[in-house]
Amino acid sequence: EITIVRADRRKQKEIRPFEIILNPNKYAEGSSLIKMGSTQVLCCATLDEYVPPFIKDTGKGWIDAEYSMLPRSSQTRVPRESVKGKIKGRTHEIQRLIGRSLRAVVDLSLIPEKHIIIDCDVLQADGGTRTASITGGFIALVLALRKLLKENVIEKMPVERYLAAISVGILDGEVILDLNYEEDSACSVDMNLVMTDKKELVEVQATGEEEVFDKKQLDRMIEYGWYGIQQLIKAEKNLLAHQLL
Amino acid sequence: EITIVRADRRKQKEIRPFEIILNPNKYAEGSSLIKMGSTQVLCCATLDEYVPPFIKDTGKGWIDAEYSMLPRSSQTRVPRESVKGKIKGRTHEIQRLIGRSLRAVVDLSLIPEKHIIIDCDVLQADGGTRTASITGGFIALVLALRKLLKENVIEKMPVERYLAAISVGILDGEVILDLNYEEDSACSVDMNLVMTDKKELVEVQATGEEEVFDKKQLDRMIEYGWYGIQQLIKAEKNLLAHQLL
Amino acid sequence: EITIVRADRRKQKEIRPFEIILNPNKYAEGSSLIKMGSTQVLCCATLDEYVPPFIKDTGKGWIDAEYSMLPRSSQTRVPRESVKGKIKGRTHEIQRLIGRSLRAVVDLSLIPEKHIIIDCDVLQADGGTRTASITGGFIALVLALRKLLKENVIEKMPVERYLAAISVGILDGEVILDLNYEEDSACSVDMNLVMTDKKELVEVQATGEEEVFDKKQLDRMIEYGWYGIQQLIKAEKNLLAHQLL
Amino acid sequence: EITIVRADRRKQKEIRPFEIILNPNKYAEGSSLIKMGSTQVLCCATLDEYVPPFIKDTGKGWIDAEYSMLPRSSQTRVPRESVKGKIKGRTHEIQRLIGRSLRAVVDLSLIPEKHIIIDCDVLQADGGTRTASITGGFIALVLALRKLLKENVIEKMPVERYLAAISVGILDGEVILDLNYEEDSACSVDMNLVMTDKKELVEVQATGEEEVFDKKQLDRMIEYGWYGIQQLIKAEKNLLAHQLL
Amino acid sequence: EITIVRADRRKQKEIRPFEIILNPNKYAEGSSLIKMGSTQVLCCATLDEYVPPFIKDTGKGWIDAEYSMLPRSSQTRVPRESVKGKIKGRTHEIQRLIGRSLRAVVDLSLIPEKHIIIDCDVLQADGGTRTASITGGFIALVLALRKLLKENVIEKMPVERYLAAISVGILDGEVILDLNYEEDSACSVDMNLVMTDKKELVEVQATGEEEVFDKKQLDRMIEYGWYGIQQLIKAEKNLLAHQLL
Amino acid sequence: EITIVRADRRKQKEIRPFEIILNPNKYAEGSSLIKMGSTQVLCCATLDEYVPPFIKDTGKGWIDAEYSMLPRSSQTRVPRESVKGKIKGRTHEIQRLIGRSLRAVVDLSLIPEKHIIIDCDVLQADGGTRTASITGGFIALVLALRKLLKENVIEKMPVERYLAAISVGILDGEVILDLNYEEDSACSVDMNLVMTDKKELVEVQATGEEEVFDKKQLDRMIEYGWYGIQQLIKAEKNLLAHQLL
Repeated sequence: EITIVRADRRKQKEIRPFEIILNPNKYAEGSSLIKMGSTQVLCCATLDEYVPPFIKDTGKGWIDAEYSMLPRSSQTRVPRESVKGKIKGRTHEIQRLIGRSLRAVVDLSLIPEKHIIIDCDVLQADGGTRTASITGGFIALVLALRKLLKENVIEKMPVERYLAAISVGILDGEVILDLNYEEDSACSVDMNLVMTDKKELVEVQATGEEEVFDKKQLDRMIEYGWYGIQQLIKAEKNLLAHQLL
Repeated sequence: EITIVRADRRKQKEIRPFEIILNPNKYAEGSSLIKMGSTQVLCCATLDEYVPPFIKDTGKGWIDAEYSMLPRSSQTRVPRESVKGKIKGRTHEIQRLIGRSLRAVVDLSLIPEKHIIIDCDVLQADGGTRTASITGGFIALVLALRKLLKENVIEKMPVERYLAAISVGILDGEVILDLNYEEDSACSVDMNLVMTDKKELVEVQATGEEEVFDKKQLDRMIEYGWYGIQQLIKAEKNLLAHQLL
Repeated sequence: EITIVRADRRKQKEIRPFEIILNPNKYAEGSSLIKMGSTQVLCCATLDEYVPPFIKDTGKGWIDAEYSMLPRSSQTRVPRESVKGKIKGRTHEIQRLIGRSLRAVVDLSLIPEKHIIIDCDVLQADGGTRTASITGGFIALVLALRKLLKENVIEKMPVERYLAAISVGILDGEVILDLNYEEDSACSVDMNLVMTDKKELVEVQATGEEEVFDKKQLDRMIEYGWYGIQQLIKAEKNLLAHQLL
Repeated sequence: EITIVRADRRKQKEIRPFEIILNPNKYAEGSSLIKMGSTQVLCCATLDEYVPPFIKDTGKGWIDAEYSMLPRSSQTRVPRESVKGKIKGRTHEIQRLIGRSLRAVVDLSLIPEKHIIIDCDVLQADGGTRTASITGGFIALVLALRKLLKENVIEKMPVERYLAAISVGILDGEVILDLNYEEDSACSVDMNLVMTDKKELVEVQATGEEEVFDKKQLDRMIEYGWYGIQQLIKAEKNLLAHQLL
Repeated sequence: EITIVRADRRKQKEIRPFEIILNPNKYAEGSSLIKMGSTQVLCCATLDEYVPPFIKDTGKGWIDAEYSMLPRSSQTRVPRESVKGKIKGRTHEIQRLIGRSLRAVVDLSLIPEKHIIIDCDVLQADGGTRTASITGGFIALVLALRKLLKENVIEKMPVERYLAAISVGILDGEVILDLNYEEDSACSVDMNLVMTDKKELVEVQATGEEEVFDKKQLDRMIEYGWYGIQQLIKAEKNLLAHQLL
Repeated sequence: EITIVRADRRKQKEIRPFEIILNPNKYAEGSSLIKMGSTQVLCCATLDEYVPPFIKDTGKGWIDAEYSMLPRSSQTRVPRESVKGKIKGRTHEIQRLIGRSLRAVVDLSLIPEKHIIIDCDVLQADGGTRTASITGGFIALVLALRKLLKENVIEKMPVERYLAAISVGILDGEVILDLNYEEDSACSVDMNLVMTDKKELVEVQATGEEEVFDKKQLDRMIEYGWYGIQQLIKAEKNLLAHQLL
């Protein structure tokens, strides 16, 4: 059974070499630098003083994310959003996805009236920056929560599952895993998948780019995605010494 | 087998009464007013003079959407984005979804160097405004394309499939179809599904709201969604006299 | 005495067919949909939580308006102000006029520390949108005040006069009443007149568009305007069952 | 016949001492500094390089105005609009009025494809800044047009009438002319009147501030206003040596 | 020893004729109008109600400056920053310099929890507007502090030194003092120097404009600058009757 | 001779351990990562497509810089400027300084009609970020120019001098070199010094922070600064293999 050949010789179901560095940042409550192929994202978790009004008196806390690309993180320089004075739609979409994914595995009632921001700054982009941000952001979050726990700011670890994310796509009818930039541009269907170590789904975003797809393809993309996510979660477990606490 | 009781007595798999009015607007190239329960969205398709630079000399055209809620479309008045001077992340996320969904069923090479904007203005909101915008926007788009065809602005109808969208959710472990505002707020999982009359998937966005879900539930949500989408597409076909042309 | 012929065969002193629908909106404290010819404005009155600082501790309340045109309310699509991030001068001018006109007939000391916003959203524009907003906004306001009275939020109806507005212009030296878009563009002088049922003046804005006019013409414009306003107020009285309370 | 006593002992129909200085600015094509009582406005006319797109190929030119108050022009410091990043509604309303008033006495076809901006910067504000801006702006405009004529940038003087503006109000039922800040705040009705030396009306803006008024009062306000405008125009004629050219 | 000839026949070490008018503004706590050649800056000191959060509970006060150019203060009209909605980098740089320079000679602990804003509005610009703003701003500040002292808002005069500023440059290898616009554009090196009457340095900003310079030249520029500053401080002392109190 | 003790045991005239990494970024024409103590700045040089209008037809090119701090680069999280929609004054001031410093050692006529942007993104901040940006930006610029030379985009190396920058301050009356954050906050005088390998001055910015200083201190600060700059330039020469070409 002959399949498509990928530019970097990877198999369809093969993810790129990856690396996660713990606490590269001196000041953040928790941080990570995640590299997936040439994609590099610095993730910093901050216990923020500003508490959004909608959690006041709810007994719950809040976690959200901010995402940004350095101007020269991509092949063509991307103008700064601060210069334009506006945050792009794509940025909004991504940071909402990251925040939502992380909240899904946190018991917000265990961080009462606290606000944690996950800053995901893309140093270099070669596809999959949003899924790398989720994986790296999860690590930064856990490290921050451990610190808050140690300092008695919170009483109990509010995370009980591991979380990771990966992209999957359909290229020339074939499902491929962990797209780089070039593949991402060429794919007719593009999926971002976020799952836990217990094989639970957190977010499924499958999108036809000027194309449609069928249920069988969706199922296959989820299967491939889970295959990749398992490897990421295995690495997370090693890095965190097999305990979230 | 006893299931949950919905506030408006609907069955789990039952969509709300809906109505689509053709061309309520005097000026737009094509327009529709879609009502799904208390949700009302006015969709207007415009052949815009401004052509985005990225389609210049590509031989292709472009379709995108703008989405907005009237301040008093919802229970609590929502301040205008023009007053804040910023477009919210949610708005960006929604209008990107609408545009992407519509482009998936249009052969953009048949509207060369043309730019069509679909304005989706929510007059009243009671859940499902983004999926109603896709369904209503599809009708407005087809009406506009028919007009452009008649006036020889384009040569061939670039749409060959019908398109509709619906929301599905999980409430107390049960899948329910076409959520109203109250249900949407209560659901632990929320899915927006966009499909064609040929049962093809265009967009699957399933999201755990501080919750996770499993593959079986995803499959069931898609099954329920397709059940509802079929009814919307049937209505579309009747309204359009069973031909896209 | 031969006069000019209007495109829609109206007499100089004839207003367009009009219709006012009460409470088309499900959520607002009071609302109206006003149609004057092809012009359609949805007016919603909201008791807003935000109270402007300048009325704090004054024993008085405040009423103001926001005005906006849907992008495809006019022949050529108007870009959203939210996209530009700025509110246009024309919009500011109009919403200040609407607010001022409504405040002139309200005893603000009877809505102490309350803030009411009148949202005027133009669904379709064919001239006279600002005067239609005043007339429709007045109805929405009265309906909202009735509701607040019923719910004991306020103690006494703070409105004692009926209010309506109309546009008048000078075309080829002749005064004409209730201009549509085409006439408005052609007029050398343009007046917006706001009056009460007691023939009192609330606002007179007469403007030479690259032209001047004389006192006799001003007097005539006011006379014509009053003629039209009387018809609108008669309709208002019928709709409100001949009592403001 | 006993009337109200004004704080500065003026008669009801008396304007404040005023002064107009020609060309105080070294760079502008034409400029004036107008003082009406304590109100001081610096008006500069510029032949701008930027030509608004809507006059392209119309054979006509355009004149508009920008208005701004220095932060400490008023009793309480007014924050800069540049700091807020937004232009206030009041500013928009005023600069539209100034531009419209000036255009009414200019034959725009005699400044083809030219754009003239009148900058009106309030150095000190004590009521009547918008009417002072119109009077001072008229002088600056005429001086600029003379210069353009001399330099053969235009061929014929496009102004044939003198123009001036004044405010009138109703205080305790009495009409008073040329309101200072304190009077302006106290008036129940406020009118800005713009007229030519030929007694023609250019702009009538009469506004009830939480009050109404009748036709007789309107007539009287116009009569008073004309009385004041005549004095301003007389001064203009002297300053300009009794010829617009 | 032959030196360069300056357009206005000044010697290298000669400053322009200058004039400082005390309290030209009716409302400000203190104000000055400074003219250095054709450069004119209106400086107004305001005791502002808004107190920046970072001085709360520090026992200290704060002084900062805002700087702006009127659109027609320069040869070519400069668009308003309020229209662009952004403050330019140059403006920020200048107003930070003015504020910092003034704070250096004020004992902030003597204006506890007070905030003073110095508004520097350039009416006409011909080089040296930032240094003129510092000199004029110092006078306005002293006048304001005297007033606050008299009104017992503060207890002791917090200024004990005189302050003035001047520009110096290198043109064709020669040091020249107090540059006008034309000279400023031609200079290869440009220095802004702020000093006290006790010959102390407050700010030295020497900048190569696409050029470099050596230590000897820096020393000479400081010597020339001090020569000019002495003259300005002498005038300040005369104007303030030889006492800061 | 006893002097102050610095927290990190450095001598007054000692700079922090530093490291410069060449081309850490995959896409930029040239890049560097500079670490001075805990301060880390990523500098990327881009040949930008956008050419500022003011260099059109001048035969010259342009170089400017953009500076930004990642939110968690500092002890307390700094909100993104893109979220605020405004660039801070400090940022403007810094990026103008970087651009000016680099232009001083480049012959802009050798990069005709070209625009190079130097992006300086602070990953971690511990004092001296602006001077580190100049040193690191210089390296990134040279690497980019080498690449452009190799690709025949330019004909001759436009840089002939090495450039570096350092901060100096006065603490308790003593001059200290290369301030970290804590020292920077404590210093009464703060200088940023930019010099070339030929001991030429490019920028001298000495500032009294609510303090003044004398000429002798200025001289000493320059002497110390030059001592530190020599070490940085030595490292630059080694890294660049002792030739700019």
